[in-house]
This record gives sequence, structure tokens and C-alpha cells, in this order.
Amino acid sequence: MPHIQLPEGLPGISSGFAFRPETAKPMRALAEVLLRGPSTLSSGEREMIATLVSTRNDCFFCQTSHRAAAAHLLDTGQGSTLEASYELVDAVRFDFQNAAVSPKMKALLMIAAKVQVSGKSVLTGDIEAARQAGATDLEIHDTVLIAAAFCMFNRYVDGLATFAPTDQQVYDEMGAMLAREGYVRESKQGA
Amino acid sequence: MPHIQLPEGLPGISSGFAFRPETAKPMRALAEVLLRGPSTLSSGEREMIATLVSTRNDCFFCQTSHRAAAAHLLDTGQGSTLEASYELVDAVRFDFQNAAVSPKMKALLMIAAKVQVSGKSVLTGDIEAARQAGATDLEIHDTVLIAAAFCMFNRYVDGLATFAPTDQQVYDEMGAMLAREGYVRESKQGA
Repeated sequence: MPHIQLPEGLPGISSGFAFRPETAKPMRALAEVLLRGPSTLSSGEREMIATLVSTRNDCFFCQTSHRAAAAHLLDTGQGSTLEASYELVDAVRFDFQNAAVSPKMKALLMIAAKVQVSGKSVLTGDIEAARQAGATDLEIHDTVLIAAAFCMFNRYVDGLATFAPTDQQVYDEMGAMLAREGYVRESKQGA
Repeated sequence: MPHIQLPEGLPGISSGFAFRPETAKPMRALAEVLLRGPSTLSSGEREMIATLVSTRNDCFFCQTSHRAAAAHLLDTGQGSTLEASYELVDAVRFDFQNAAVSPKMKALLMIAAKVQVSGKSVLTGDIEAARQAGATDLEIHDTVLIAAAFCMFNRYVDGLATFAPTDQQVYDEMGAMLAREGYVRESKQGA
């Protein structure tokens, strides 16, 4: 049961957003810029960063919904399958150094993993490794901020003890919607 | 030296904001709603919550600038002094259970301290204690979100290794400005 009287029937962060539209608006806008805005990182790559951080913060709702969003965004349909995309995202979640992602993504995921612990744990060597793998300053900036932002979203979701569905099918549908519509739509459903 | 090429001469988070105005806008808007918007908690009280979390995240720039903002907001000028306000904020930073704040504030600070560690560490008993001390659902919500948001701001500031002035006078002036002008002004200076 949620710690406070949140609107019923809304999963996870959407119940906090419905409770307090004044804070929901900038939070949704920030997620939209970071995960869907113009970037040299694909939305699928950025959702994988969000999923890794949410997994390490042990936030069930966020890791499951963003895992699904990442999988749907990575699913190109050209010879790939949604199942293979889910497998890739799970490889990133649990062992990104050995996942089938680019050296640049591995270096950015390392930075995100460090930010999850503390901003101070990001060292010059981590940044140099990302640069040598081809990361730009903007990509490094956005990786740091995506990781930092999910340290907020995860704490918000769990700090209020929001309701989290357990049915994976619900998250798959949520992920498909997040992949399609992003974070600033008017609907009250979704992450 | 910052990890990426940030605009020079801007302290702390303002250099990240100048580097990436697209993300600065919702981040400033969120800070404004949470710390300056209409609330039954005073802005001084809300800045103390932000300062406690920033202190526990060991973010020098944020804890020092929000400490100053809190002190200036708490300084009523009616028999109180700025120095006494700084002392109160420092008491909250380092030992809030014995600080001269209300039982309600102590219960909210406890919730914020737990959110700093993890959203999951907030327990039903923490919420009940806050309610018994008179806290409303909205105050509890905003406390959770202020703490969560500073887990983002702190990681952003330190994850980019932004420049932090060491002169306390700089922070006192910054705090006075933040107390007076808030977070959505056009100026590029400030936290």
C-alpha cells in the first residue's frame, strides 16, 4: 500500500504524477528531453542506461517498465525479434561489460553505474575511456544526467511505496506505449 | 577541472545548465515548484531538507549553496540574526534530531535522510511518525521528492566534476540571491 493517499489504479510513478501535477510536468519534460529528444544516442540506448540504473537502485517498477521500453525501441523488426531485444537489455542490466553493445556504450554504462553510487565516483579515467571509445561531451553529459535523474525517479517511486503491477504483460504494453508516445503525452497511464 | 568542456566562470550546477539549456529548463522548474512554490512548509524549511540531503551526499557545492539559501530564508530579521540562522541550518545538517526545529520537521527530515539512502528504506513507521507530528500527505510527498531530486542534482554536479568556489562569501551571496530570486530567473549565475 502506498505511504500516502495516491489516486488508485495508476501504476508506479504515474500515481505520484497524478497526485502532484505541478511537479509531474517538469519531471515528464526532463525525461522526454533525456530519453526522446534529439541525440546521437538512440532512444533504445538511453533507455538501457535508465534501466541499468533502475536495476542497481532495485526499483522494480522503473527497471521493469524501462526494460520494456528499451526492448521495444531496440526491436527494429528487420530480422530482429522483440525477444532478442529483451535478452540484450537483460544482458546490459546484469553484465553490461559482456553484453553485445558497442565499446562506447560500455564506457557510458560504466559512467552511469558510477553515478548511481555517487557523482564523485566518476573518475577522469572513466571519462577518458568513454572519449577514446568515441563518446562526445554531450553524450557524456547526458549519460551522467540520465543516471542522476533515475536516482531521483527510482527514489520517488519507492519512497512513496507506489503500486507496482506484477504481471509482465502489463509492463510489455507499457513499454510499447512509452516507446511509441514518450513522456509528455496527456494520458495518465504509464511510467 | 570539469570532466567535460563546460562554460567557464560559472559555479557548480549553473555550468551544466549553461551547457545544456534543454535539460536546465525542467530542472530549474522542478526546483522552483519544490522549494519556492506554494506550500505549507516554508521555503527555509524546504531548503533545510535539500541541505541535509546534499550534505549526506557529500556534494560540497550543493550543501554550501543551499545552506546559505536556507539561512537567508530563515533570517526573519525580527530579533534573529543571519548567524543564528546559519547555526540552525548546521545543526540540522549534522544532528537534526537535536536541532531546534519542530517535531514535524524532525520527522520529515528523517524521511528525507532515508530517501537519500534508498526509496525503499522509508518505512510505514516513518510515515506514521510524520503524520502523528502533524504532517500532511502533500508535505510527505514533497519531502520525498525534494530528497529524491537532490539525489539527482548532487550527482549531476559531482558526476561532471563542476567547478566549486571555496570562498564562503561567494556562497553567502549566492544564498541571498537564491532566497530572493528563486530558481527560474534568466541569470546564468547561481545554484
